[in-house]
Amino acid sequence: MKLQVTQENLQKALNAVARVANTRGTLPILANVLISTSNNRLSIAATNLDIAITHYIGAKVSQEGSITVPARLMQDFVSSLPSGVIELDLQETKLHVSTEQYKSVVNGIVADDFPSMPAITTGKQWTVDGALFKKGLQQVVFAASNDETRPVLTGVLFQVIDGKLYIAATDSYRLAEKQLGANSEEVRLLIPASAMQDLLRVLGDGAEKVSVTHDDQQVLFQVGDVELVTRLVEGKYPDYRKLIPASFATKAVLKRSDFVNVTKVSSLFARESAGSVTIEVGETSGELSIRSVASQLGENTATATAQVTGSGSITLNSRYLLDALNALSGESVLFGFNGKLEPTLLQDSASKDYQHIIMPLKS
Amino acid sequence: MKLQVTQENLQKALNAVARVANTRGTLPILANVLISTSNNRLSIAATNLDIAITHYIGAKVSQEGSITVPARLMQDFVSSLPSGVIELDLQETKLHVSTEQYKSVVNGIVADDFPSMPAITTGKQWTVDGALFKKGLQQVVFAASNDETRPVLTGVLFQVIDGKLYIAATDSYRLAEKQLGANSEEVRLLIPASAMQDLLRVLGDGAEKVSVTHDDQQVLFQVGDVELVTRLVEGKYPDYRKLIPASFATKAVLKRSDFVNVTKVSSLFARESAGSVTIEVGETSGELSIRSVASQLGENTATATAQVTGSGSITLNSRYLLDALNALSGESVLFGFNGKLEPTLLQDSASKDYQHIIMPLKS
Repeated sequence: MKLQVTQENLQKALNAVARVANTRGTLPILANVLISTSNNRLSIAATNLDIAITHYIGAKVSQEGSITVPARLMQDFVSSLPSGVIELDLQETKLHVSTEQYKSVVNGIVADDFPSMPAITTGKQWTVDGALFKKGLQQVVFAASNDETRPVLTGVLFQVIDGKLYIAATDSYRLAEKQLGANSEEVRLLIPASAMQDLLRVLGDGAEKVSVTHDDQQVLFQVGDVELVTRLVEGKYPDYRKLIPASFATKAVLKRSDFVNVTKVSSLFARESAGSVTIEVGETSGELSIRSVASQLGENTATATAQVTGSGSITLNSRYLLDALNALSGESVLFGFNGKLEPTLLQDSASKDYQHIIMPLKS
Repeated sequence: MKLQVTQENLQKALNAVARVANTRGTLPILANVLISTSNNRLSIAATNLDIAITHYIGAKVSQEGSITVPARLMQDFVSSLPSGVIELDLQETKLHVSTEQYKSVVNGIVADDFPSMPAITTGKQWTVDGALFKKGLQQVVFAASNDETRPVLTGVLFQVIDGKLYIAATDSYRLAEKQLGANSEEVRLLIPASAMQDLLRVLGDGAEKVSVTHDDQQVLFQVGDVELVTRLVEGKYPDYRKLIPASFATKAVLKRSDFVNVTKVSSLFARESAGSVTIEVGETSGELSIRSVASQLGENTATATAQVTGSGSITLNSRYLLDALNALSGESVLFGFNGKLEPTLLQDSASKDYQHIIMPLKS
């Protein structure tokens, strides 16, 4: 392999894929990125056996070939090189990387040993708007669970209902669902949240359309010059939709920034009580106030004005509340709840495309 | 105690002192800040028994008093409040903090139990330019040791030689010395580097003069509205000056940015060899090149053009080299060395006010 590539392109590709490479694994080669040529294209790929990312960049190839080199080293090395042309020259398993100023030899492992993901031969394909998809993932993915003992909850559910695509995630304490517009396919995919985190990193400004191809084993996302393949999560996802309350005994509409501030301040006094805060909504006062459950440190009551229908109070985890408020984007937010133990809902007062459910704490 | 203070001032004061308060200590009250009034001034103070910082701010005091409250909570709380007037109202040991929107009660500990540093009654006093002092500390303090088994090396030495003030620090592998201008006093102080780190945080933009008062036990720094008192380190400081080479068998002058870049790149390949890199200087080639000691990962040679007198090579820890290059500020740097085991020197090629010594590694 012998080729010339710009530092800018090579760095971009390495930054996109290197994170997936894993140095803590048992297979040393999984800590490497695969560098290989095809005509005048260079592909940089990394995999952890569950997820594989490939980034294609233009290059001036004078001799075809492929090699794997340590991802972390290669990424740090290339990003510390000055912008301009970099020459890659493979001799046996040693990759010679040189610019005017720098001459390096990176020891590689032959590409034959690099595991490749099975290709998706037969399957559905559809596209989704990049910007909308990115926003939606950001609003949903953090609600997924990290607890490997319940694998289904570590996934993000993609499903089409009545011709519309929805993505949803829950850790059983909170739930986020986003509607991503019309989709004529029949879709029901459970995709690892970790893979969606990696996808978010490659989505960039979300300018490009995202093409999605899937069979019953795995799913392929294509964004510009990047391909991400991931295995699907197996198991039955809970029927979360019946949790979403349709009506509320108590409703408050207030400025999101106000809600964020009063929650932040109260949460400081809730450290000893695992973040537990009590929200009180008064119809006559026209206020939403958050009280920190009194603690050694002291106590706090913070108040914001709101349009209220029906009075009541409910106790929530302030961290979940902040996560939800930060995931919303509208000027003002609707907060609704019923009984002390029933799910609460947060959404933009203007739009129902994004719904966020938080289960209350016993108080 | 009852008073009104602006959120801006209170936050500024808490940020300056809270870091010194220590939650991991044995004395719970050391995790608190002391809030006390004197006329229309409010003083916020914290101490860890070695260092004490006091920040004075203006306030509208309607009733004198004092209390100590948890530093971390108070800092986080005040900084999350909106700008504007905050009212503090002490009732027994409970500090009521309120704004229009927020009403909080912070549980305190009576001020009587708060340890106070002995005042400096008799002692020398002199001043130093704030900007010069800040720059000098930044260039020197990181070279001090963290190893408590050799206490003297955890200090920064202040001494006046031939009517000039010098500050110096060394961990025995490297040494930094900065000249801070004329001083007519007889000064020889060994001050904990940790205290100088805290002082750096309160020096701000260094616009104000720094006034220094000391006896043989402790030293007081006054900067604007802030006072920092620290105990002195006891013990005999090594006579480091005889380490500084007067002449060099090999000398290279090159652009500092070039030197930084070639060192950075080489250090990536030196991870397995504890950062050890070999610098080669060629008089005929007119180049300085850094070679990473070959490793599992590979090897690297990076080259920069330089004005060279005398050829030679020497092996250094690349991290120390980067620290030194980042501490320098001039366009171009002078790098000089003699034998393979003798100290090397780095300084701005234009100025001798700052000298940085690095001991070589055996190669």
